[in-house]
Amino acid sequence: MKRAGKLSKKRAQKAGEPPGYLSYSDVKKKEKVKSSYIDYDKDNYTEKEIENIAESFKFKETDTTTWINIEGLSDIDIITKLSSEYDIHPLVQEDIFHAHQRPKIEEYENFLYIVANMLKYNEVKEEIESEQISLVLGDGFVITFQEKPGDVFDPIRQRLKNKNGKIRNMKADYLAYALIDVLVDNYFIILEKISDRIDDIEELVKDPSEEILHSLYDLKNEMIFLRRSVWPLREVVNKLQKDDNEFMGQTVKIYLRDVYDHTIQVIETVETLRDVLGSMLDIYMSSISNKMNEVMKVLTIIATIFIPLTFIAGIYGMNFEYMPELSLTNGYFIVLIVMLIIALYMIYFFKKKKWL
Amino acid sequence: MKRAGKLSKKRAQKAGEPPGYLSYSDVKKKEKVKSSYIDYDKDNYTEKEIENIAESFKFKETDTTTWINIEGLSDIDIITKLSSEYDIHPLVQEDIFHAHQRPKIEEYENFLYIVANMLKYNEVKEEIESEQISLVLGDGFVITFQEKPGDVFDPIRQRLKNKNGKIRNMKADYLAYALIDVLVDNYFIILEKISDRIDDIEELVKDPSEEILHSLYDLKNEMIFLRRSVWPLREVVNKLQKDDNEFMGQTVKIYLRDVYDHTIQVIETVETLRDVLGSMLDIYMSSISNKMNEVMKVLTIIATIFIPLTFIAGIYGMNFEYMPELSLTNGYFIVLIVMLIIALYMIYFFKKKKWL
Amino acid sequence: MKRAGKLSKKRAQKAGEPPGYLSYSDVKKKEKVKSSYIDYDKDNYTEKEIENIAESFKFKETDTTTWINIEGLSDIDIITKLSSEYDIHPLVQEDIFHAHQRPKIEEYENFLYIVANMLKYNEVKEEIESEQISLVLGDGFVITFQEKPGDVFDPIRQRLKNKNGKIRNMKADYLAYALIDVLVDNYFIILEKISDRIDDIEELVKDPSEEILHSLYDLKNEMIFLRRSVWPLREVVNKLQKDDNEFMGQTVKIYLRDVYDHTIQVIETVETLRDVLGSMLDIYMSSISNKMNEVMKVLTIIATIFIPLTFIAGIYGMNFEYMPELSLTNGYFIVLIVMLIIALYMIYFFKKKKWL
Amino acid sequence: MKRAGKLSKKRAQKAGEPPGYLSYSDVKKKEKVKSSYIDYDKDNYTEKEIENIAESFKFKETDTTTWINIEGLSDIDIITKLSSEYDIHPLVQEDIFHAHQRPKIEEYENFLYIVANMLKYNEVKEEIESEQISLVLGDGFVITFQEKPGDVFDPIRQRLKNKNGKIRNMKADYLAYALIDVLVDNYFIILEKISDRIDDIEELVKDPSEEILHSLYDLKNEMIFLRRSVWPLREVVNKLQKDDNEFMGQTVKIYLRDVYDHTIQVIETVETLRDVLGSMLDIYMSSISNKMNEVMKVLTIIATIFIPLTFIAGIYGMNFEYMPELSLTNGYFIVLIVMLIIALYMIYFFKKKKWL
Amino acid sequence: MKRAGKLSKKRAQKAGEPPGYLSYSDVKKKEKVKSSYIDYDKDNYTEKEIENIAESFKFKETDTTTWINIEGLSDIDIITKLSSEYDIHPLVQEDIFHAHQRPKIEEYENFLYIVANMLKYNEVKEEIESEQISLVLGDGFVITFQEKPGDVFDPIRQRLKNKNGKIRNMKADYLAYALIDVLVDNYFIILEKISDRIDDIEELVKDPSEEILHSLYDLKNEMIFLRRSVWPLREVVNKLQKDDNEFMGQTVKIYLRDVYDHTIQVIETVETLRDVLGSMLDIYMSSISNKMNEVMKVLTIIATIFIPLTFIAGIYGMNFEYMPELSLTNGYFIVLIVMLIIALYMIYFFKKKKWL
Repeated sequence: MKRAGKLSKKRAQKAGEPPGYLSYSDVKKKEKVKSSYIDYDKDNYTEKEIENIAESFKFKETDTTTWINIEGLSDIDIITKLSSEYDIHPLVQEDIFHAHQRPKIEEYENFLYIVANMLKYNEVKEEIESEQISLVLGDGFVITFQEKPGDVFDPIRQRLKNKNGKIRNMKADYLAYALIDVLVDNYFIILEKISDRIDDIEELVKDPSEEILHSLYDLKNEMIFLRRSVWPLREVVNKLQKDDNEFMGQTVKIYLRDVYDHTIQVIETVETLRDVLGSMLDIYMSSISNKMNEVMKVLTIIATIFIPLTFIAGIYGMNFEYMPELSLTNGYFIVLIVMLIIALYMIYFFKKKKWL
Repeated sequence: MKRAGKLSKKRAQKAGEPPGYLSYSDVKKKEKVKSSYIDYDKDNYTEKEIENIAESFKFKETDTTTWINIEGLSDIDIITKLSSEYDIHPLVQEDIFHAHQRPKIEEYENFLYIVANMLKYNEVKEEIESEQISLVLGDGFVITFQEKPGDVFDPIRQRLKNKNGKIRNMKADYLAYALIDVLVDNYFIILEKISDRIDDIEELVKDPSEEILHSLYDLKNEMIFLRRSVWPLREVVNKLQKDDNEFMGQTVKIYLRDVYDHTIQVIETVETLRDVLGSMLDIYMSSISNKMNEVMKVLTIIATIFIPLTFIAGIYGMNFEYMPELSLTNGYFIVLIVMLIIALYMIYFFKKKKWL
Repeated sequence: MKRAGKLSKKRAQKAGEPPGYLSYSDVKKKEKVKSSYIDYDKDNYTEKEIENIAESFKFKETDTTTWINIEGLSDIDIITKLSSEYDIHPLVQEDIFHAHQRPKIEEYENFLYIVANMLKYNEVKEEIESEQISLVLGDGFVITFQEKPGDVFDPIRQRLKNKNGKIRNMKADYLAYALIDVLVDNYFIILEKISDRIDDIEELVKDPSEEILHSLYDLKNEMIFLRRSVWPLREVVNKLQKDDNEFMGQTVKIYLRDVYDHTIQVIETVETLRDVLGSMLDIYMSSISNKMNEVMKVLTIIATIFIPLTFIAGIYGMNFEYMPELSLTNGYFIVLIVMLIIALYMIYFFKKKKWL
Repeated sequence: MKRAGKLSKKRAQKAGEPPGYLSYSDVKKKEKVKSSYIDYDKDNYTEKEIENIAESFKFKETDTTTWINIEGLSDIDIITKLSSEYDIHPLVQEDIFHAHQRPKIEEYENFLYIVANMLKYNEVKEEIESEQISLVLGDGFVITFQEKPGDVFDPIRQRLKNKNGKIRNMKADYLAYALIDVLVDNYFIILEKISDRIDDIEELVKDPSEEILHSLYDLKNEMIFLRRSVWPLREVVNKLQKDDNEFMGQTVKIYLRDVYDHTIQVIETVETLRDVLGSMLDIYMSSISNKMNEVMKVLTIIATIFIPLTFIAGIYGMNFEYMPELSLTNGYFIVLIVMLIIALYMIYFFKKKKWL
Repeated sequence: MKRAGKLSKKRAQKAGEPPGYLSYSDVKKKEKVKSSYIDYDKDNYTEKEIENIAESFKFKETDTTTWINIEGLSDIDIITKLSSEYDIHPLVQEDIFHAHQRPKIEEYENFLYIVANMLKYNEVKEEIESEQISLVLGDGFVITFQEKPGDVFDPIRQRLKNKNGKIRNMKADYLAYALIDVLVDNYFIILEKISDRIDDIEELVKDPSEEILHSLYDLKNEMIFLRRSVWPLREVVNKLQKDDNEFMGQTVKIYLRDVYDHTIQVIETVETLRDVLGSMLDIYMSSISNKMNEVMKVLTIIATIFIPLTFIAGIYGMNFEYMPELSLTNGYFIVLIVMLIIALYMIYFFKKKKWL
């Protein structure tokens, strides 16, 4: 997994720099940044990929709702221009730019700033991929910043195109709610994948092997990192729903209560799965002990039966000149019978001890 | 058990859909939905199985209390019609429809919405079955939605038929209380079953085996899932009892305090049983170690006594031409005596170490 | 111990019954119920065993303090008559009747209702016995209900007889305090018994055996159940001391602060003993591992020394026609010396590894 | 250690006695009680060992500060006389008398009552000794009660003698602060001793032995008991510093904030040491497993190489009349070479498995 | 590591001394103390190494911001003079002087006193080094006291030299913020180092060895000590940001919110790494058990196959005069075939048990 190393890198590189400082050194290579806007109201709908970020500024003063979506953080120009147009605080710019923030919500005079994690399950690598989403909600606009191209917002785009959809009748706050809602719903998809893997392992855990141990370990760590994402998100949604602010309308808050319930459900599921994984590790350890016990019993039974018999055979294999038993006609058979009796007694002993 | 996989499926399928959206795709096959109503006041009592849901609407404006009970969620029509008649919020409709919500209470302008889990012990499969109950309590009516036919409410139905019963003299809030009370009381039945199984295993745990381990594991997971049901239920009952709302009268709140005590008792019992199961797993592990220790001792005793003796026998089994001891008349007996002394010393050594 | 099964039985049988319902089916057999009253003020003292419960009603209107004590719950008549005379709420009657409530305090208009557990140490069975005490404190009277005859209140009875005792100068609230105080003080006696048993085991735990393991397990479970009794009791005493109510005077509250300190001390002692037991289980497990390690070392030393030597002896026990060493005059002695060297090297090896 | 048994004895003996009751039966034998007083203000200083407790009463009405120190609790007279002179509540007298209270603070009308534990490290027995200190702080006087002669207050006595010391310029509240401060500072000495012992063991834990296990166990239990002392003490100091009361002046409260910081530091150190001890126990267990693994490998290597070889030797030691290999001229050497090859292969196998 | 012993030494030596007492005995040897000041406002910038501490007092009354930095605590004179000039409370002087305080913030009339830990990673010793920073923030000045020369503040010094930097336009509160910010940012560097070491070990943990165990143990303890530093720091930053005080301006508080977020992120990372280390220890233990299981299987397979065969060979190595099988022509071959069959059966048996 090698996740631990990712926890703090970005921040560590910035130690000592002034707040709000965006340096080009942060940008490894200037990847293509994909930006687009969707502008809509009840009757109109415009969607366009943006070449020059200034194109999107024309909607600022209109009554329509504008959603500007930036996929990729390597173009500082775009962030700077957007920020100066929409008057975004330097600390927020810094947070947008330096991913790996924890989910949080900050209220500024002219906008709400929300950070959350977008989780996607990479089917090929069988891994959870996490990406920071920064959402700026102002009066009449929502701006989203993503780390990489590709997101989970397509259902929202579909619903926006539908002229009769509820979302077209609502303002920017409802759009922000819808985006957060779909983020949280994706957590359920991730949890379903993990639950399925846990169910798969549950079948196998009675027959312990190194691979299962490592699967358990990977799952446990994934839960640790998932937990890290969802706990603060709950606080974010709670604040959105509870605190008075001018950006979230009362009607949308009822819907946010629903999202809040979902974040709690996600957290409880994460905790439950952690508990289940804990139980599985316990049973795994117990199974190993059981197996070893069984191995030991086989060894002990075989050794305990045959070592004494071999000793007896060894006795009569000695080459002393005078060993009276050797010349007895039935000596050989008597010894064989004695051996048989010893063996039977041992088997009886093991039966009594319930080792057989 | 394969319970982990059930935790988040329903919700995962809905990711990206608008709130309050009921899709037919959720309905696997249109099972027969059984609905009925009971309408009563002090003097009158009507009970009827409903063919057409509209039959039940006639009681809406009367002073009587009406209990509409829907068993099965596959008929969207019923839910939609009921909702429009009783003015139920789309988010509530969605929650009713998509089971696996966590227990919660939500207050709307014209009704209280309560979600809880109904637990039944399936004697055949030896499993706890869980089903979501949605309860809508309004002025003069209670509507309950169940996932599947069959419930634990028969004692309430009996009490309703009894003209002198307290329940006939009370309003819809008392009916809601009675339904929740019987749900919580059923948790005690489940806990009793589990306690009995724990007591059964306690007898066996001193003699550890794979089956006991898996029983312990199953019980532990059942406690994890039970816990998940009861913790939020406590909050629900607490809110019902504490919060001011127009649907719960002051007289009924005294009874709810009693239900609240019971939910706490359920939670404490669950926690206690978890602790007991934890202790049992500890003793199980220790017992395995004890057994292995015993096995090892037997092996060590046998091997340690006979391996040196076999070596001595091996010495005198060598075919060297010149081995002076071989030609001694008493050589054989001397060796046997030496062997005996060694064996006795070993036994003394083991006694001293308390291995025998 | 088989305690788990007792946790929820009573309540489970009642599922679905109306609140406040006392059924004869709860009564297994009509045991003799022993009731008595003590009526006192500064100057007068009357103590009497009651034949007919109505005898005790005459004190209701007097200024004296009356303590009615009912030992045994099998006579519903007594409870019903007392309840109607003293106007006790049906829910309280139900709680008195159905033992295994958790400790709680409930305030009603005309009385305080307190539930606590009376613990007694049964010296014969070496077991803690628990019994529910229901205490009804009203204006000028205290009514106590016990599950079985026999209690820990004799010191109170002695103090009541003493004309100059403080208790004779005080009202019913002080009597209630004194009863609760003696209940809590008895917890210390139980804890002392358990501490003594823990100290006994501490001596033995270095030499692990199955019996010690089971003693540890029993003690651990006893702590689990004890904890269940004392945590809610603390809340009860705290409420008694803090909440404003007309039944507890200000002077008595200072004494209750003392009882509250004692409940906290009981809880801390229980938690401390749990921690100590946890440490003991750890040391027990480590001791088993240590022992097994020792056993393994003995086996390994013996086997590692003698198996190679036996192999060498086996070599020269082969019957090949041409084995040049066999005809050497000193062959036998050379082999013996080689064996000795190997054995000494092995012993040196084990010394270096600190196995010897 | 046998500490568990001491936790609740005193209290258990008192069950059922009236509150505030001091009985001679509590006093095992009438040891000599050492009492002394120090009376001082800016200009005067008197120190005297007391023969008759009444000597100290003369300072009651003066403006000076008086510190009366009683070492030993066996003389009930002294406590009673002091109590009646200074009007000390019976419950406080009882608490002073019956040691093993948990640290607490209680405010009465005319004084503050503080209970704390004085810890001393007995270098001879290598044990922490704990003793209850009761401190009564009133207007112009401090009375301290100790269980046994000998305390940690000598530095305070030195500072009191110094005419220019701050303490001489302050009132009784500063004296109380100074006494508590020195008590808390002594906890650091205890923690230093324990830390040193932990560091000593850390060196040894890689080479596990029974003694280390028992040292770990003793240290763990000492931490459990230390924790029990310091947690409530923190609350005591916090209340002293925060609550409004007439006995603690505002100037002294700044100093108490410092003591409060120290109690928190003690608690955090205790918790840290507990965590470290937990880690050490983990590593100890792992080391045992590692050692056993190593032992097993040696056994397995030796057994696995020689058992098959011994079997081959056994084959050619059989006495069948017709065994063609025996008469081969090079038979013996061929067999030896085969044995060598098998042994080398085994060694190669173990190298590959990294057991060698 | 031997960290435990450092936890409480300094404090222990001070037991019984008056508060605010600075003794020369605390100073082991009078190391050179390096002090310097930086005085700046928008237009001017002076930086100077100080010979005589009084040099820095001239800026006290100017409008500029002065940062006095003392590296080394061995010169009591400097601390005393500074304190009297800037009117620093004796308790603060004592805390500056006696390092190993826990991070805290204290408000005095004329300044804020902040204690934090400066962590540096010593690349040579591969160890975290911790040093106490005391920061006194007053009106127009910041004084920092470090235990040893060398710090992490160079980026701040650079930014101060830059005339256009934001820091030059701000007051002392912003300087204090910047210093704390860089301290917290350095925690991320430490966490990155630790994360890298954890990732390195993760690769190796599947192949358990003593060294890995000790690395795990060291890392675990480092987390314990790191945790001890960051938890109280969070409270310090929170108080700085939340509490009203005259030393922190409203503009700077927005930046402190950012630092607060970082402290929370540090704490969560520490907790996450602790969880990961816990998982690794679990997997380490399981891996050891797995390995031992494998070793046992090899031993058991070899022993179980060859011990019975050796016994058979032993039988026919006996020297009885009359053993009919020995004279059979094919006796030898029959026995060999029987042995082969037994061996094959054993192998089949092990295959069935999945040991091969």
